Amino acid sequence: MGKNSGQVKTGQDKEFVKAITPKDEDYSQWYIDVILKTKLMDYAPVKGFMAIRPEGYALWEKVQELLDKRFKDTGHQNAYFPLFIPQSLLQKEAEHVEGFAPEVAWVTKGGGEILTEPLVVRPTSEAIICDFYSRWVQSWRDLPVLINQWCNVVRWERSTRPFLRTSEFLWQEGHTCHRTEEEAEEETLKMLEVYREFLETEMAIPVVYGSKTEREKFAGALRTYSVEALMTDGRALQAGTSHNLGQHFARVFDIKFLDQDDQLKYVWQTSWGVSTRMLGALIMVHGDDRGLVLPPRMAPTQVVIVPILTKKDRDRVLDSVSELEKELREVLRIKLDNREEYSPGWKYNEWEMKGIPVRVEVGPRDIDKGHVVVVRRDNGEKEFVKREKLADRLQQLMVEIQDDMLKRALEFREANTRSGSDYKEFKKIMEEKRGLFLAPWCGESACEEKVKDDTKATIRCIPFDKQPEHEKCMICDKKATEAVYFARAY
Amino acid sequence: MGKNSGQVKTGQDKEFVKAITPKDEDYSQWYIDVILKTKLMDYAPVKGFMAIRPEGYALWEKVQELLDKRFKDTGHQNAYFPLFIPQSLLQKEAEHVEGFAPEVAWVTKGGGEILTEPLVVRPTSEAIICDFYSRWVQSWRDLPVLINQWCNVVRWERSTRPFLRTSEFLWQEGHTCHRTEEEAEEETLKMLEVYREFLETEMAIPVVYGSKTEREKFAGALRTYSVEALMTDGRALQAGTSHNLGQHFARVFDIKFLDQDDQLKYVWQTSWGVSTRMLGALIMVHGDDRGLVLPPRMAPTQVVIVPILTKKDRDRVLDSVSELEKELREVLRIKLDNREEYSPGWKYNEWEMKGIPVRVEVGPRDIDKGHVVVVRRDNGEKEFVKREKLADRLQQLMVEIQDDMLKRALEFREANTRSGSDYKEFKKIMEEKRGLFLAPWCGESACEEKVKDDTKATIRCIPFDKQPEHEKCMICDKKATEAVYFARAY
Repeated sequence: MGKNSGQVKTGQDKEFVKAITPKDEDYSQWYIDVILKTKLMDYAPVKGFMAIRPEGYALWEKVQELLDKRFKDTGHQNAYFPLFIPQSLLQKEAEHVEGFAPEVAWVTKGGGEILTEPLVVRPTSEAIICDFYSRWVQSWRDLPVLINQWCNVVRWERSTRPFLRTSEFLWQEGHTCHRTEEEAEEETLKMLEVYREFLETEMAIPVVYGSKTEREKFAGALRTYSVEALMTDGRALQAGTSHNLGQHFARVFDIKFLDQDDQLKYVWQTSWGVSTRMLGALIMVHGDDRGLVLPPRMAPTQVVIVPILTKKDRDRVLDSVSELEKELREVLRIKLDNREEYSPGWKYNEWEMKGIPVRVEVGPRDIDKGHVVVVRRDNGEKEFVKREKLADRLQQLMVEIQDDMLKRALEFREANTRSGSDYKEFKKIMEEKRGLFLAPWCGESACEEKVKDDTKATIRCIPFDKQPEHEKCMICDKKATEAVYFARAY
Repeated sequence: MGKNSGQVKTGQDKEFVKAITPKDEDYSQWYIDVILKTKLMDYAPVKGFMAIRPEGYALWEKVQELLDKRFKDTGHQNAYFPLFIPQSLLQKEAEHVEGFAPEVAWVTKGGGEILTEPLVVRPTSEAIICDFYSRWVQSWRDLPVLINQWCNVVRWERSTRPFLRTSEFLWQEGHTCHRTEEEAEEETLKMLEVYREFLETEMAIPVVYGSKTEREKFAGALRTYSVEALMTDGRALQAGTSHNLGQHFARVFDIKFLDQDDQLKYVWQTSWGVSTRMLGALIMVHGDDRGLVLPPRMAPTQVVIVPILTKKDRDRVLDSVSELEKELREVLRIKLDNREEYSPGWKYNEWEMKGIPVRVEVGPRDIDKGHVVVVRRDNGEKEFVKREKLADRLQQLMVEIQDDMLKRALEFREANTRSGSDYKEFKKIMEEKRGLFLAPWCGESACEEKVKDDTKATIRCIPFDKQPEHEKCMICDKKATEAVYFARAY
C-alpha cells in the first residue's frame, strides 16, 4: 500500500511495549501507563476528577449487567434518589456526618441565588434515602424494601489514583429495610456473598471476606463486612462492602412501621456497594507488562479476528474473515479488525495491550489449509484450529482461560498469604513481601493502631471461619480473641 | 381468612379510582395523582428535586435498554464524563454560557475549603466533553468520535413538575465529532430519526419533527431539530432534540485534526439527548381516569396473573397459576400476584391503575372449564382463552394492543392538528382546543414573539415536508417562507 493510505510502519510495532513501564520497575507507573495507553480513563481539568473513556466504560457496563442481574434475582429493584442532600439531613446521624463531612462538596448557589441551606453533593445516600423511607414505610406490608441505585457520588479526596480513588466515582448502593434484626443480618451477608461470587465467577478475582473492626467500619453502621482482594504488588484492595445498619438510621430518621401485632416498630436496615474501583482490581490482579488481560466473561470483546492481507489475496481473505465473523458472532463477542491502515503486527500488539482474551489470525495460507491460528492473551499459547471446529474450540477456550486466570490469581493469593504471631517477622514481611497476614489479635484498637503506625498495614477483615492459632495477641501480650487478616491496602 | 391475616376489605376497592382526579376536571391534578398513586416518583426535601421510585425507574430502564441498543447499532459507545465543570470552561462558548448560566448550581466548597475556581454541576456536558475531545482527537484516524453518556444533570428550575421539569433529571447525551459538515448533518438527522422511530415503535407515541427556529434552538448550536409529541390536553411536548453544533465548540475548545491531506482542520460536531421527561409523555399520551396505560413493549410487567382464591380450592388454584406463570415466563414478562392479604377485586384495581397491559384471571371454575379470563387494560375487553392457546394468544395480544395504542394516539393527534392562516381563528383554537396548528410564517422572530405573547403558543418545529399553503405569514403581511407547527407546550 502506498504512502497515502497512511499505513503505520512495522518499526512502530514495539512502541506499545516500550510505552508501558515494567511492573517490577515501578508498579504504580505500570498501572497508570496501562490505564492511559489502553484509553480506559483520562484526567479531568479539575484535580482528582476523571473521564471514563469508552474502553473503560464498557468494562463498567459489564459489571453493571452482571451484578444487576444478581440483584434482581435476589428480589431487588432499582430506583433513583436526588444528588443533593440538605445539610440538616446529613447531620442527623452523628457518626455518619462525622465520617463524611470532611470530604464532601458543597453547593451554595443555585439559579443565581445564595441558598438558604447549603446542599451536599451525595458522598453516599443513606441520609437522603432514609428521609424518603420514613414516608414510604408505614406497614409491615411495605417490608422488606429492597432497593438499589446505580449512580455517581462525590468525595473530595486529597490524593487520587485512576479508578482506585477519585473525587467522583460511579457505584451502586443498595438500601434495604426489614422487619427484624435477623432478616437484616441475613440480607447483609447475602449481598456480601453476591459480591464474593461475582468477583470470583465473572472477574476471576478470589477474595477473603469477613467483618470489619470498629475502627474500619462504615460511619453509622452497626457492623460492616467486606470482600478483600490481593493485588499483584502484595497490597489488598477492599472490593465491596455490606453494612448492617441496625436501627441507627431508622431511629434518627423515624422509619417506623405498624407490625402485624399492632405495634409501631423501627425497621432494621442494610446498605451495600461496589464501585468503579473494582476495575482497578481487575487491572492489577490480571494485567502484565504487555498491558491488560481481561477474563473472557468480563471482556466486552472476547475474540478479535485479524486478517493478514497481501495485495494478491486481499479480497479472498477479507471475504473469509467477514464470513467467519458472522458465524462466530452468534456465540461470542467478536471484533473483526480489517483496518487497512495498520499492519497485522501493529494490530497484534494493540489487541494484546487491550487484553482481548483470544486473537484469531487468518492469512491466505491458513485459508488454503482450512485452519486458523488461535492465540491466547493470558499465556501466549498458539494453536492451529480447523475452521469447522473453531466455534466450539473458542467457546471451550473461553472457559479454560477464565478458569486458568482464577487459578493463577488464587495461587498468587495463597503464595502471598502468611500467618504467625511473631511481630518482628510480621513487620519484615509487610516491609518486603507484603501480602495477607493472618494473625491473632486481642480485639483492642490500640494494637490495631500500633500496627498501622509501625507498618502502614491495617486489619482488612476478621474472617468468619478462622480461629486464632496462638493464645496471645501478636502485638500485645493479652489474650487473642480473633484471627484477623492484616495487609497494606489501597 | 381471619382478621389477623390482614386482608383488605372489598369496600376499599374503589379507593383507587376515587384517588385519581378525572382528566376532564383538572388535567394537571390528574397527572400528579397518577404519578403519586402509582408510585412513579416522590418529592424530595429540596424543592424541585424528586426521587424516581422503583415503578418509575423500571420504565426508565426500559427506555435505556431499548434506546441503548439503537445507539450501539448505529456505532456509538458509552462513556462517563465528570459531573463538575470549571467556570472558565463553561464560559468559553458565549451563547452556550448565556443560555445556561442563569440556571446552574454552583459548588464553591470542597473538602472543607473554599475552591479557588467555582465549579458548575453539569446542566449539559458540551463544555467538559469538548475539553477532553481537544486532547483525544488528533488525526483523521480518530474520527468519527461517536460517544454517548447516560447520566444526571442539574438545571435550577423555578417551577417544576414531576418528570416534565425537575431541577435534577436523568438523560442521555450523545456527543460526536466528524470530519466533514455533511457527516455531522447526517448524524444529527440520523439520531433524530432514532428518536422518532423509538417513540413510535416502543412508546406508541407518534411525533412531528423538524428544525427549531433561531429563537428556540440550543444555546451554541448551528441548528437544532426536535421530535414533538401531542399530549391529550392538546399541549405539545418536546420529547427529544438533536443538534448540529457546526464548528462553534471546535473553534473555542480547539478540537483539531490532521486530515489525510496533511491540513489541520476543526471537527464538526453534534449532540443529542432525551431525558426522563419522556416518561411524562408516556403517562399523558396513554393514561386515563383509572391511571396508567402502558404499551406492551415498554411495560416492565406485560401480564399479571390474578388467582381467585376460595378456602376450598385455594391449593389447586395456586398450583395452577404457578404452573401457568412458569410456562408464560418463557415468552412474556409475567407477574403472579398470589398475595392472600388482598382480594381479587383490589388487585384488579391496583394493576389497572399501574397500567399492566393484560390481566389473566384464574378461578376454580375456569380451571374446570380449561380456560382463563383475559382482560385488556387499554380498552377493557374481556375474552375467554383456552389454556393451551394462552401463550400464543397473549403474544398476539401484545402486538394488537401496541398497534391499537399507537393508532389511537395517531387519531388523536390528527384530530387535533389544524391548519390555516386566520390569526383570529388561530388564537381562538389555542385558547379553547389547543392542539397543533400548521401555519404560514415569514421567518421573523417578531412574529414568533407576538404569537407567544398573545397565546402562549410557540413554534414547535419547522417540518421538513410541508410547504406553506398560503402566501402570507399568518401574523404579519409579509411573504410566508415556511409552514410551521405552533402549539402551547410543556
